[in-house]
Amino acid sequence: MTDHIVEFQPHNVKIKVPDGTTLLRAAMEAGVHVNASCGGEGACGKCRVIIEKGQVEGGGGKRLSEQDLQEGFRLACQSRVIEDLVVRIPVESVVDASVLNVAKTSRQTARVRQFDLDELKEQGLFIPPIEKRYLELPEPSHEDNVADATRLVNFLKAKYGEHRLVVDLPVIRKIPDVLRANHFKVTATLARPVQEGRKTRIINVQTGDASSRNYAIAMDIGTTTIYGQLIDLHSGQILGEYGDFNGQISYGEDVITRIVYAEKPGGLEKMHDVVVGTINKVIGKIVKQAKVDRDEISTITLAGNTTMTQLFLKVNPRYVRRGPYVPASTIYPPLNAAQLGLDLGDHVDALVYPIISSYVGGDIVAGVMGSGMYRTEKMTLFIDIGTNAEIVIGNKDWLACAACSAGPAFEGGGIKFGMRAAKGAIEDFLLDPVTLEPMILTIGDVGAKGICGSGLINMVSLMFEMGVIDNRGKFNRDLKTDRIRENDEVYEFVLVWADESQINRDITLTEIDIENLIRAKGAIFSGCQTLFEEVGLSVGDIEQVILAGGFGSFVDLTKAMTIGLLPEMDSKKITYVGNGSLMGCKMSSLTNRIRKDIANVLRRMTNFELSETPSYMDHYMAALFLPHTDLKLFPGLAKHLEDSRDSQRSFPNISGRASS
Amino acid sequence: MTDHIVEFQPHNVKIKVPDGTTLLRAAMEAGVHVNASCGGEGACGKCRVIIEKGQVEGGGGKRLSEQDLQEGFRLACQSRVIEDLVVRIPVESVVDASVLNVAKTSRQTARVRQFDLDELKEQGLFIPPIEKRYLELPEPSHEDNVADATRLVNFLKAKYGEHRLVVDLPVIRKIPDVLRANHFKVTATLARPVQEGRKTRIINVQTGDASSRNYAIAMDIGTTTIYGQLIDLHSGQILGEYGDFNGQISYGEDVITRIVYAEKPGGLEKMHDVVVGTINKVIGKIVKQAKVDRDEISTITLAGNTTMTQLFLKVNPRYVRRGPYVPASTIYPPLNAAQLGLDLGDHVDALVYPIISSYVGGDIVAGVMGSGMYRTEKMTLFIDIGTNAEIVIGNKDWLACAACSAGPAFEGGGIKFGMRAAKGAIEDFLLDPVTLEPMILTIGDVGAKGICGSGLINMVSLMFEMGVIDNRGKFNRDLKTDRIRENDEVYEFVLVWADESQINRDITLTEIDIENLIRAKGAIFSGCQTLFEEVGLSVGDIEQVILAGGFGSFVDLTKAMTIGLLPEMDSKKITYVGNGSLMGCKMSSLTNRIRKDIANVLRRMTNFELSETPSYMDHYMAALFLPHTDLKLFPGLAKHLEDSRDSQRSFPNISGRASS
Repeated sequence: MTDHIVEFQPHNVKIKVPDGTTLLRAAMEAGVHVNASCGGEGACGKCRVIIEKGQVEGGGGKRLSEQDLQEGFRLACQSRVIEDLVVRIPVESVVDASVLNVAKTSRQTARVRQFDLDELKEQGLFIPPIEKRYLELPEPSHEDNVADATRLVNFLKAKYGEHRLVVDLPVIRKIPDVLRANHFKVTATLARPVQEGRKTRIINVQTGDASSRNYAIAMDIGTTTIYGQLIDLHSGQILGEYGDFNGQISYGEDVITRIVYAEKPGGLEKMHDVVVGTINKVIGKIVKQAKVDRDEISTITLAGNTTMTQLFLKVNPRYVRRGPYVPASTIYPPLNAAQLGLDLGDHVDALVYPIISSYVGGDIVAGVMGSGMYRTEKMTLFIDIGTNAEIVIGNKDWLACAACSAGPAFEGGGIKFGMRAAKGAIEDFLLDPVTLEPMILTIGDVGAKGICGSGLINMVSLMFEMGVIDNRGKFNRDLKTDRIRENDEVYEFVLVWADESQINRDITLTEIDIENLIRAKGAIFSGCQTLFEEVGLSVGDIEQVILAGGFGSFVDLTKAMTIGLLPEMDSKKITYVGNGSLMGCKMSSLTNRIRKDIANVLRRMTNFELSETPSYMDHYMAALFLPHTDLKLFPGLAKHLEDSRDSQRSFPNISGRASS
Repeated sequence: MTDHIVEFQPHNVKIKVPDGTTLLRAAMEAGVHVNASCGGEGACGKCRVIIEKGQVEGGGGKRLSEQDLQEGFRLACQSRVIEDLVVRIPVESVVDASVLNVAKTSRQTARVRQFDLDELKEQGLFIPPIEKRYLELPEPSHEDNVADATRLVNFLKAKYGEHRLVVDLPVIRKIPDVLRANHFKVTATLARPVQEGRKTRIINVQTGDASSRNYAIAMDIGTTTIYGQLIDLHSGQILGEYGDFNGQISYGEDVITRIVYAEKPGGLEKMHDVVVGTINKVIGKIVKQAKVDRDEISTITLAGNTTMTQLFLKVNPRYVRRGPYVPASTIYPPLNAAQLGLDLGDHVDALVYPIISSYVGGDIVAGVMGSGMYRTEKMTLFIDIGTNAEIVIGNKDWLACAACSAGPAFEGGGIKFGMRAAKGAIEDFLLDPVTLEPMILTIGDVGAKGICGSGLINMVSLMFEMGVIDNRGKFNRDLKTDRIRENDEVYEFVLVWADESQINRDITLTEIDIENLIRAKGAIFSGCQTLFEEVGLSVGDIEQVILAGGFGSFVDLTKAMTIGLLPEMDSKKITYVGNGSLMGCKMSSLTNRIRKDIANVLRRMTNFELSETPSYMDHYMAALFLPHTDLKLFPGLAKHLEDSRDSQRSFPNISGRASS
């Protein structure tokens, strides 16, 4: 078979591939990232590339216009290499991790809540999971020649009152040389049992006094991004933090396409290897940032949704995506990190957060544990919004949860110019009330490339308030502006003209985009309503809201209420915890109290399958308006709309429309 | 560098090796076994080979006579390949495992003692370590979609009253497909905790009802031989049994040469791999014999001396051979068999017997546990005789142990024509009192190749009783027979003339051989004496003797007392348990009671280092006679000697000699 050379620009990478290889596969093998939402079926149209030199076979499809084709655009997943090529990856198709690691701006709109070690100690919640003990042991003699491990155990008992100690095999393997390297001066790392009365394991020994350096890693395995933190177990401080895109993205953007991939022969192993690869990259970065030796890391805690958890642990998620949606297990025993492929010492346990159900995963459990929701008296609504939105309601006495499929709108999916919250994404937006000329703010303050989730919410909320769109999400046809136009029978609003954009195309917001956003927010709102109804409460009973997920950090809460995504309430009651999954992992690293409480929380948690709850569809249909069919649920907003519209132009009456 | 072809006969194996390779290494790489006691230093002279074609460099040495050299004999370890060769391995240099697996003859002289399952049950000692439970689970539905593992756990609780269950990762990995393979009919394998109140682990799941097939493996990792048994956990029956020579023999016959090898770069890994290779071979044989699928094996228990244990677990035994003889650990946690390299399912735990000290290992602990010595009221002497002899004294209240270096005489080492108890070894022996013509019995009833340990004891005992040798082990110079002769200034007795032997050389017993035997038996007897003295008892306090090791099965106990190897006592008090290490492993497979009791036994056991006990050397010097300087210790024998000699010829008076 003949091979061809494919050169990728702007990366300037060349690769030799066999005749007939798809460009997506060629890019993957060359290590060149191209967005590919649909797993290579030509459906999402995200993997647009420009053929600068040479010809490919195929590569068209309904996602490309005639003009696109003439300009050399092809879908990488549909194009087969038949000769040498030069291929340019357009900016909007490149995954750029740099934005994940920029310092957060002050745009946060809800109070950030993170526990620290001192607070745990004050509240009596501090049970150290890992401790180091330094000992100067007497050297052995013919009168006293007990085994090295026995000597260590005996003196840990005598000097520190330790008891019920067991010694792990990696420790036995290294203890003879470690003891003799420095006159039997040694530091032992002790891993405490979660249940009292169980055994304390000696998991590591180091020469000399290494007791002051004791570190842990927390890791959130997200479908899109993987975030890690390196934590000093003495101070509780975060010494390193890094995020990267989950390498599995190249095999499909959502969990379903990943599960499908994992069902192919060798697919599960590949998904495992790839996610482990990304985790190792993140570990490498944070270890370097914190100037810590890998051998000084004593433990790692990881959390992810059910599919990410199963792929990471090489447990086939085949039945997670098929009714009745049964996961393999909720709880995983502690595992050896090195055996899972992690670049850590062989003494390191990997603790993986348990999951609730196929669609309420370890990331949510971590959020519930880490936020302290499970210990509070207050009736709490916890929401983690991403592609799926997971909702937990309850307090220290009981908990109920559900997942609703919001669709990918909040992450830019299903939106014509949607993109992740990466450089060039429009994140905020204002409109001149007279000229309707927009004011655009992008992440990274560069030329606009597309619209991210928070930008979408902000612009739809504003346009709705201003009457540019009505409560069904349709543009006001009467407005006199060339920015509102009909294109391929779809109305759209031109946010950025082609010559001002970074992608040389008009960036628009279409009515289809708005419809998708309304569906997404409707799914979440009706999910909350249904769950409340099932437990016999109403939205008004909520005493606090905890928002988790990247979502909360950029979205204006008032605007989220305006479109009916969140129930209307005093925003002082809303707490934002950021990455709840990562926070939960960090908290488990700091205290065993969390791990001890998890079993109880799992028992107290009731999972509701919304698809099996008849009232959900009614609630959903009623929520497919801005903000809702029943404006009484949003009294403040109703009042505000009346006031502001009275004082501006006379757009059609909102409540009138809603009842039509 | 030039390569040469070496052809080995009678194996008919060819191998290409670089110029300068030793023949021993070439044989090793070719998979051709050659005895090599000394680890390749030319000292033992065991690795004799015949160069049939071609020339080697070197290969002589003090162990070969001029005649040997002329006949083409060379020492394989000292010969370097400099051209193409044909090399014949003489019969006496070949290791032959077949004898290890022949049915035992009726020559056993002590009562064999093996516990069975019924006895354990009667005595209330039966706590099953592994149990299988069959369940027909309801299939999941949208109303009941708990995780697969949760479903299993819930129904184990409901149907069998199980509680505190944890599910291992390999089970989680396979449970989704196993459940769905046969309508949620499933058999779960439960591994019980040793300590009550701890968790029961679900270690395996199988489709359908597999509860009747539940098996365990017991494995004795000996320095010389590795024996395995396959045990039916329902009946307690042994369904398969096989022994093979430990592959490490090629790297040195005793533990010291193996430790030296393990200290070289890569040596520890090599020793580990080789012993794992032999164990896997034994597993393969017994699994096939018993017609059992590997997946049906639920657990494996192994025991070995301290060095074998450390090499198997890849723990460097560097300090085991250096004063003050410190092992790495006494206790090893349960380990995953597959991760250790064993060819078993990934659900199988490998349980490794704990050790006491550098020279009292897990094989002895297994013997003490398996024989029930630790539970008896009777004052017991437990002896396991091999290259080292380990002695344990005590009962259910206290235990004391020591190891004495008997040297390799009992396994044929240091004996001119010594060999292991393999085909062609002289195992029994009679002398015509008038002509002094011998009657020879060999293992396998083939032509004689050498003398094994039991043969040696039998012939020395008999010759001593008949006055052919005196109490110092010297031949009676006055006897008129050409079988007693002086050769290279050493007196020897020709057992088999060259033309009647399988090796075409005169097979003789020399005074040096006898001296080595006396040293060996003296070390053991004085070890017992010293240990008794240290605990304030005397030999007369012994109520029973438990003999372990291959030794006991072929040696005539009366003869062992005649030479002063064992204290004189009523042979009804002597119990022979065979391979005590294997027995202990089997017993731990049948009941958790043993594992539960081990920790206590380790605490009750006092280890004595004989080399650090001043009286040991005095006792040893006094024991360097047949049977002993102090004939009062052997009153029955003294009487018998007087009687028999009075009635036969008038050889010099024994007691007179002893006091001279």
